[in-house]
Amino acid sequence: MFVLGIDPGLSRCGYGVLERVGHRAEAVAIGVITTPPTDEIPVRLARLQGEMRSLLAEYRPDVVAIERVFFQVNAQTAIGVAQAAGIAMAEAAGFGSRVVEYTPNQIKGAVGGYGSATKEQVQRMVQSLLGLPNLPRPADAADAAAVALCHLAHCRFEERRPTAARR
Amino acid sequence: MFVLGIDPGLSRCGYGVLERVGHRAEAVAIGVITTPPTDEIPVRLARLQGEMRSLLAEYRPDVVAIERVFFQVNAQTAIGVAQAAGIAMAEAAGFGSRVVEYTPNQIKGAVGGYGSATKEQVQRMVQSLLGLPNLPRPADAADAAAVALCHLAHCRFEERRPTAARR
Repeated sequence: MFVLGIDPGLSRCGYGVLERVGHRAEAVAIGVITTPPTDEIPVRLARLQGEMRSLLAEYRPDVVAIERVFFQVNAQTAIGVAQAAGIAMAEAAGFGSRVVEYTPNQIKGAVGGYGSATKEQVQRMVQSLLGLPNLPRPADAADAAAVALCHLAHCRFEERRPTAARR
Repeated sequence: MFVLGIDPGLSRCGYGVLERVGHRAEAVAIGVITTPPTDEIPVRLARLQGEMRSLLAEYRPDVVAIERVFFQVNAQTAIGVAQAAGIAMAEAAGFGSRVVEYTPNQIKGAVGGYGSATKEQVQRMVQSLLGLPNLPRPADAADAAAVALCHLAHCRFEERRPTAARR
């Protein structure tokens, strides 16, 4: 099973493709899609859409896991994040992948951290869980891998539940 | 010149295609794209994307004018609006249309109203400006036509400016 994790953003949209191998997760591709702040927003969104489509076509993920957008932060940044998330979700659903959202706390919890974990702590935890030789950079790429790890952890949890408890 | 106005939204996304004929604007198509609230968000976004693509292919607008998203309102609704706006802008830019954003106050001002104009007042003003036999319904469709009218009014303003003042 391939999972594509997405940390949505307009300037930097992190992605992490993981493959589930038995009970482990292996990193297939981790990186960021960037769009130049000097370009107009619609052009940047169209570029992000094209890159997202390329990722889906290349890795054909069964599941696209995406960080849920909240609005405690800077409103202008939040609009860009929501727009990027919307495009990623529409492309993924149109492609036929299952799309699931996770909150920032669920994601940090899944990689062994707390809601207050710093960017660098998340990078170190992702490095350790995936057995990477180097710290995954930039932070958005590591965050995206953490979203995919969060989904895999939820799958394992679901599989461990007694059959009687399932609906 | 064809202008496609968009009042972005996830449950109801208004659209209004206007043609500029001399100094007048004629309504070509006014309506709403709806997505069922019972469907999952990514599926709804993908459907909106497909409908938006169909509109672009059918009317080939030179300009797509869209209401700018603000966050004074309900945050959860605002996320859906921002996601819908992002998809509309990405599709329009990818199609090759020029994309311009207008604030709610600019839009209401352009159809002869004030920032406090009610939905029904906007509907009546749009009906009058476009010489429509009936009140454009629902309100989201009229709002979208108002966005397109706003763009046409701005074009006229630009054309009236002395050449020396242009940059």
